[in-house]
Amino acid sequence: MSGMAKTPEPPYYAVIFASQRTEGDNGYGKMADKMVELASQQKGFLGLESARDEGLGITVSYWDSLESIKVWKENSAHKAAQDKGRSEWYKNFALRICRVERHNFFEM
Amino acid sequence: MSGMAKTPEPPYYAVIFASQRTEGDNGYGKMADKMVELASQQKGFLGLESARDEGLGITVSYWDSLESIKVWKENSAHKAAQDKGRSEWYKNFALRICRVERHNFFEM
Repeated sequence: MSGMAKTPEPPYYAVIFASQRTEGDNGYGKMADKMVELASQQKGFLGLESARDEGLGITVSYWDSLESIKVWKENSAHKAAQDKGRSEWYKNFALRICRVERHNFFEM
Repeated sequence: MSGMAKTPEPPYYAVIFASQRTEGDNGYGKMADKMVELASQQKGFLGLESARDEGLGITVSYWDSLESIKVWKENSAHKAAQDKGRSEWYKNFALRICRVERHNFFEM
C-alpha cells in the first residue's frame, strides 16, 4: 500500500509512527506487510500512508475514533509485532496520537 | 534533517503533508531543503520528520499552536513554494492539520 489515504471529513484520528530501523531485515518486511493488511481489516480503520528512506520511516494510519486505535493497539498479533519492534527492529521510534482538525487535498 | 523530532509534552500540533511527485527534480530538492531551513526558524516550530520513497513522501512538522501554523502558511517565500508545488512538483498531495493528544518515545 503505497498511495495516498482517502479519508472522510474531519474530525478523525491519526497515528503518526516515525522510526529508525536496526541493520538488516530480520523478518521486518514480511511482518510490516502483514500488519498493514491486518490494520486495514480493523473496525474504524480509514486509511494508511507510509514512506521510508535511509534516514527515517514514517507510517500514518487514520482511524474513526480513539477507541478503534485502542482496540488495534491491543490486538494480539499486533502486540507480538510491537514486542519484536522493541527487541529487534527499531533503534528508536516516536508514536503520536492526533485528532485531525482539518484537511486539504490537491490533485493535478 | 532526517532524524526524529524531539517534541515537548502534548498538546501541540502536527501538519502531516503526504505527496506524490511529478517526474524529475525541476528545482524541487533545493527548494525543499530551503523550506525546511526556513520553517525551523519560525516562531512556534517544534520539529520536523520527513521520509520519501518511490511511492510517497511524508513530511510531518510540529508546532506549538494553530496560529504558528497559519503564520508559516502565509509566509511569502513559503507561498511561492506552495505555488510551484501546485503547478510543477506535485501530482497530488494531502495536507492534514492535527492536534497531538498523546505521544510515546522508544529508544533501544
